[in-house]
Amino acid sequence: MTFKTDIEIAREAVKEPIQAIGAKLGIGEADLVPYGHDKAKVSADFIARSAGNPDGKLILVTAINPTPAGEGKTTTTVGLGDGLNRIGKKAMICIREASLGPNFGMKGGAAGGGMSQVVPMEDMNLHFTGDFHAITSAHNLLSAMIDNHIYWGNDLEIDQRRVVWRRVLDMNDRALRDIVTSLGGVSNGFPSQSGFDITVASEVMAILCLAKDLDDLRTRLGDMIVAYRRDRSAVYARDIKADGAMAVLLKDAMQPNLVQTLENNPAFVHGGPFANIAHGCNSVVATKTALKLCDYVVTEAGFGADLGAEKFMNIKCRKAGLAPSVVVLVATVRAMKMNGGVAKADLGGENVQAVKDGCANLGRHIENLKSFGVPVVVAINHFVTDTEAEVDAVKDYVRKHGSEAVLSRHWELGSEGSEDLARRVAEVADSGMAAFSPLYPDEMGLLDKINTVAKRIYRADEVLADKKIRDQLKQWEDAGYGNLPVCMAKTQYSFTTDPNRRGAPTGHSVPIREVRLSAGAGFIVVICGEIMTMPGLPRTPASETIMLNDNGQIEGLF
Amino acid sequence: MTFKTDIEIAREAVKEPIQAIGAKLGIGEADLVPYGHDKAKVSADFIARSAGNPDGKLILVTAINPTPAGEGKTTTTVGLGDGLNRIGKKAMICIREASLGPNFGMKGGAAGGGMSQVVPMEDMNLHFTGDFHAITSAHNLLSAMIDNHIYWGNDLEIDQRRVVWRRVLDMNDRALRDIVTSLGGVSNGFPSQSGFDITVASEVMAILCLAKDLDDLRTRLGDMIVAYRRDRSAVYARDIKADGAMAVLLKDAMQPNLVQTLENNPAFVHGGPFANIAHGCNSVVATKTALKLCDYVVTEAGFGADLGAEKFMNIKCRKAGLAPSVVVLVATVRAMKMNGGVAKADLGGENVQAVKDGCANLGRHIENLKSFGVPVVVAINHFVTDTEAEVDAVKDYVRKHGSEAVLSRHWELGSEGSEDLARRVAEVADSGMAAFSPLYPDEMGLLDKINTVAKRIYRADEVLADKKIRDQLKQWEDAGYGNLPVCMAKTQYSFTTDPNRRGAPTGHSVPIREVRLSAGAGFIVVICGEIMTMPGLPRTPASETIMLNDNGQIEGLF
Repeated sequence: MTFKTDIEIAREAVKEPIQAIGAKLGIGEADLVPYGHDKAKVSADFIARSAGNPDGKLILVTAINPTPAGEGKTTTTVGLGDGLNRIGKKAMICIREASLGPNFGMKGGAAGGGMSQVVPMEDMNLHFTGDFHAITSAHNLLSAMIDNHIYWGNDLEIDQRRVVWRRVLDMNDRALRDIVTSLGGVSNGFPSQSGFDITVASEVMAILCLAKDLDDLRTRLGDMIVAYRRDRSAVYARDIKADGAMAVLLKDAMQPNLVQTLENNPAFVHGGPFANIAHGCNSVVATKTALKLCDYVVTEAGFGADLGAEKFMNIKCRKAGLAPSVVVLVATVRAMKMNGGVAKADLGGENVQAVKDGCANLGRHIENLKSFGVPVVVAINHFVTDTEAEVDAVKDYVRKHGSEAVLSRHWELGSEGSEDLARRVAEVADSGMAAFSPLYPDEMGLLDKINTVAKRIYRADEVLADKKIRDQLKQWEDAGYGNLPVCMAKTQYSFTTDPNRRGAPTGHSVPIREVRLSAGAGFIVVICGEIMTMPGLPRTPASETIMLNDNGQIEGLF
Repeated sequence: MTFKTDIEIAREAVKEPIQAIGAKLGIGEADLVPYGHDKAKVSADFIARSAGNPDGKLILVTAINPTPAGEGKTTTTVGLGDGLNRIGKKAMICIREASLGPNFGMKGGAAGGGMSQVVPMEDMNLHFTGDFHAITSAHNLLSAMIDNHIYWGNDLEIDQRRVVWRRVLDMNDRALRDIVTSLGGVSNGFPSQSGFDITVASEVMAILCLAKDLDDLRTRLGDMIVAYRRDRSAVYARDIKADGAMAVLLKDAMQPNLVQTLENNPAFVHGGPFANIAHGCNSVVATKTALKLCDYVVTEAGFGADLGAEKFMNIKCRKAGLAPSVVVLVATVRAMKMNGGVAKADLGGENVQAVKDGCANLGRHIENLKSFGVPVVVAINHFVTDTEAEVDAVKDYVRKHGSEAVLSRHWELGSEGSEDLARRVAEVADSGMAAFSPLYPDEMGLLDKINTVAKRIYRADEVLADKKIRDQLKQWEDAGYGNLPVCMAKTQYSFTTDPNRRGAPTGHSVPIREVRLSAGAGFIVVICGEIMTMPGLPRTPASETIMLNDNGQIEGLF
């Protein structure tokens, strides 16, 4: 049996004009701002006019801890959306935009796979509608204005050693991680140590994804801390007078991008914050708009459920007033085997015992998700080598954990393969079983919030935080930031901070290396382990083989 | 008398849908790739299909040496285009895109002014269709791939001290001019001194503007020199295997952008290379496509005629096989006065003698332009304070120099004010008087080419080039680059290398500080004086007051 590659399938897609896709959502041509014939932004006016519509039901797709076997979270999000449409529901999906830089390294695109993809795939993995470029520009304008302020006299009395605002590029470039700027003499400013992060790591990205509208965007941009004075008081982007121009640069980027699935169902693809130092979800504007236009909105969160779903609930839903009706937890037989101790090279044959052993990881995620008051449906994303006995082992396990697993073949068959999943998910969403609440209240202390996530989600025995970190958290509480949620930055591969500990470990501790205040985005980043905010390229980067073929088509991007 | 600001006029523009503008050029909706409702790219297919059409006549708009009084080159280009349409000619304009960075400093937009503007003005001064962002990405991908190659073993044996490829950002950021990269230890690479230029200074920008099509683009990208080995042999972008992925990133950016004037006439706005270290003209693809679609195409070149028109003729026209039918030389009464020795503060009253004194600058440009075999029409861009006697003084002078000056009131009146100019320019273009030839043949030696421009255009007595520079030019000739044209980088404010010497100086010498090979763009850059490739922000940057007003409109950008 041979399968077509994702790019081959995507190229054969029969796309509808984006105006036809917009029409399915009741968006007229004047309110669709086209970018080519197959992409459009939705006008701010239309969004404002839709504010009075009733809300549809929100469905979150998340996954077990990722393994090298792959889980197919985005693929399942797309397949479920198409499945809901197939069974006659008015549904759409909301996913994140892909970052340009990693596509030139080794990462594939983020548009789903097989028969469950969003198109145009190439555009989405290149410049798309320019949102990330706008974020890069806005971020770096602030950087330039900070140094320019110091250059011309430093009226704000910024301590030049304590400029915390770096620069960004949407490129994997390790040489820019740690640099010295302003060499070359008087006219180039004061030499300082600084660096670049990748654009998705910018606080501007997190803000764009959490802001309600352009006014809220500008307010949050102004709230960002860019430096400290010698007395440790904060200097804000507002003090630099950069917030207005940054909002201008981000005006179009704030509007959700409409595209379509292979089955011509609508999809918003908007925003893409890091899932470690940020919350890892698509934009609030896109999700809220989609809920006004459809009965069911399927969205996803970055990484596995311990990180992605936790932040979706505790940050995005809390702040935006959203409440999921059901969570779909994606698992694969292969990933269960890896969680059961099998190496990737040995995944070939049937191994029911390994599947059973690995299900502990799945079980803990189910429990965790239920603790938010939301029912869980497990989606077994079918892989061609899965055996019936292996699939049954997963189903049995899930049933014993008081939930239900549905096999779904959307990768192979599109919505024909996800009908069962769609039907069950819609039933649960409609059941009224959900009673969502975040894991901790706003008024809980910051260290207690960290403890709550570490103990209730990671199942750690303890959080290790030295005096410096505890003092820092206390200081932020005193400064009025105590009501913010925490944004955990931890390896996505394990419940623990050790990426090699698969399954459902216990007895571990969570050491906090560093805490950061994202005052504009509105969360405290808690860094537990090494977090890389500027990736590098591999020995043989994908960019060496990316090119236009003789038909003008893009080769090698995926 | 009060006048509306440019932005007020632009906001009141009654734009036609971009499809209607395309229809005027015979471009169907399928071949227009829309970016919003008022911008579109023209498909590569359509351009290929139009290749057999006869060519229209090419009209170059250039100017005297710029003064702080302003000349209005772009405004006249737009006004003339509208004027030609008004008198029943099928005409369009081709101008450059604006750079984002400088708009946050102090520079206004580059979309014309008064009643002769191109719209949408705000978009054109912000992200527009993303071309410059694509160039930034392509340029910096190459940078990352070079450092990555060295990081993983340096098989090409690059001398790390001789990496000549820097990075770019479309931002005025002096702190990035001179930096040290790859600090922080082994995993970040080898520390090196490097820096950022502004995106318009990228050789990729020059290539995009000179390439015939995507194949030619990729070839030229591969030809770029990025570093040297210890034996001084060159390492090319092709050796780094970056050319394919860079072409993919630039695929859409290669297509001309269609917009409209205030009078709903079509305009291509595409490309924007620096006018000092590059050739300063809009793209060859846009100009050639426009010539296939219209009877008259009005375009402009950067800076004054000694730099901009010279490069337009000797680089763009030579390489692209273009030949202008007429040159329009823009002058203003105020600029004549400044060339006649009057300070900007004293421009207020009538001063016929100063106008006469300043006309020497104009006269020399007329002579120079005629030396390319092209007839010259002087456009006096009318300013409200000009007196009749002053205007007549310019007309008299020009008449005595065997040319003709036409007063044009397009800034105030739009095409109603430029009818006379349009009629005269069309007559001259149709007259068959033009017999274009570049100033020097390809086979002339590089130093002789420099001498030819310096003596025949700048009217210098001599070129000063030390042995190191002469040896370098000789070495490039030996390496097969001797047939390239020279791209002069000199102050735009004077015929000499001293920006304060207005009028028509003689007896000066042209010292060459440095020469650079742009092997992909296909020219030798000859640097005569200080050239800044990364601007800084002023004490009070425009960005401090740029913002969205309560109606969601952009304030402060212009």
